[in-house]
Amino acid sequence: MLSKDKKILIVGLGLIGGSYAEALRRSGYAVGAITRSQSSIDYALEQGLIDEGTTEVTPEFAGRWDIVVFALYPHVLLEWLEKYQHCLKDGALLTDVTGVKCAVVYDIQRMLRPGLEFIGAHPMAGREVYGVRNASSAIFQGANYIVTPTDANTPGAIATCEELGRTLGFARVSRLSPERHDEIVGFLSQLTHCIAVALMTCKDTGHMYGYTGDSFRDLTRIARINEQMWSELFLLNRDELLQQIDLFTSRMGEIRDAIASGDTEALQALMRLSTERRALFDK
Amino acid sequence: MLSKDKKILIVGLGLIGGSYAEALRRSGYAVGAITRSQSSIDYALEQGLIDEGTTEVTPEFAGRWDIVVFALYPHVLLEWLEKYQHCLKDGALLTDVTGVKCAVVYDIQRMLRPGLEFIGAHPMAGREVYGVRNASSAIFQGANYIVTPTDANTPGAIATCEELGRTLGFARVSRLSPERHDEIVGFLSQLTHCIAVALMTCKDTGHMYGYTGDSFRDLTRIARINEQMWSELFLLNRDELLQQIDLFTSRMGEIRDAIASGDTEALQALMRLSTERRALFDK
Repeated sequence: MLSKDKKILIVGLGLIGGSYAEALRRSGYAVGAITRSQSSIDYALEQGLIDEGTTEVTPEFAGRWDIVVFALYPHVLLEWLEKYQHCLKDGALLTDVTGVKCAVVYDIQRMLRPGLEFIGAHPMAGREVYGVRNASSAIFQGANYIVTPTDANTPGAIATCEELGRTLGFARVSRLSPERHDEIVGFLSQLTHCIAVALMTCKDTGHMYGYTGDSFRDLTRIARINEQMWSELFLLNRDELLQQIDLFTSRMGEIRDAIASGDTEALQALMRLSTERRALFDK
Repeated sequence: MLSKDKKILIVGLGLIGGSYAEALRRSGYAVGAITRSQSSIDYALEQGLIDEGTTEVTPEFAGRWDIVVFALYPHVLLEWLEKYQHCLKDGALLTDVTGVKCAVVYDIQRMLRPGLEFIGAHPMAGREVYGVRNASSAIFQGANYIVTPTDANTPGAIATCEELGRTLGFARVSRLSPERHDEIVGFLSQLTHCIAVALMTCKDTGHMYGYTGDSFRDLTRIARINEQMWSELFLLNRDELLQQIDLFTSRMGEIRDAIASGDTEALQALMRLSTERRALFDK
């Protein structure tokens, strides 16, 4: 379990890694960090987000941690483990924050040496700004945390990972298979980012800020998007995401047809369903 | 101009009409109301939103106001004016809050008797709740107000209507032709409501609230929708709205193709454009 003497290493000190560090150190854990930029380490030390940190991966440093959280881009995560898993402590529990699961979890579990266990997790929290300087554990308040165990995981690791989510301050911790995660997140998160980008780019909006209401602002908040990360996530979840796009586009087509043919009944029936379903999502 | 001795009548005391009443009475104007429900009048009197109100349209009551704001569904607005314009005071300035303009402004200007002037306006503000009991002039703070004059309008009426917007507390008052209004609002507001309804209804989401992040919540806030009002607005702006839907759907198709073919460059180019354009819309 996640007893207070566990030492926790964050690999990748960006917005999410930094927010994990802040929440965990505040909860009393010893927190270390490995990241590429010395200035991120310096900032995190100054702000008290971590106890110690380094830009270099050595067995001396990396071998001292019981739990290792990877907050890296998916391809960097896989490369890191290939190169450095020998540095990690025997018995360490590894987890991640990656927004896709099938494309990383199985490969990692296959490649890990005996004595290391990896369990996937996805904190459903973020901001439209990046880097450790924007880190704040407040983004976890009221948010959801999903653990994605497989047959390769032990009950102890699952329990520890779920406790990690609660310790970080998430409002709800739940469990999904990697496959179901990728379907649901493809719909709830990836599709919504596709929609926001399409809406923001399909028409010249340069002069329109003087005419807009809140609805356009709401639908495009996430149109400020990290193109490196999201293009990678989209392509790693390609088949599921295409299915979710098709579901949505097909319903848009029905709405279009109802408008074109003046079918008030059909429009109102969809709007009633929409209103009823949305009620479940109020925070 | 909108001097303090002007008496202002609100016809239709719902969320928007009630919020107008509150803002105007607080600014020192005499405010009256005509609406269908006596309980709405009672509530507005109790809360001090209006000075007087009635459910009956008589020349004695309706003929005492210099400015009349119609906060009605579009078809109700047209019917009301046909039936009761004879009750209004000679020289009165009429305006509205309707979300479509071509379909109402020209018909009204054609049907009005000499001595009455109608100028269209659209407050870009609202909430997902309805009725005068949810009225609050706070919804106008930071929001946009659009005046849609035609050749039939006098400079004095345009100036008064713009001053009304500022008096209500809107952050930005601007002017568009009815045609340009319907194009822009078709895109910014109606298309976004279509998207929210499509997203909320295209997949069974009953169990998904435990897994969602903020992006799905943001994109579906407006999926709680008044089906009477919005189906009417959609159909009154049918041709423009269909064009905006097609623009959006076509761009969704390009994003789909880029994902299907693994075209990282195309995806990232759209995401960069999206990020750049969204920056203009921060409040």
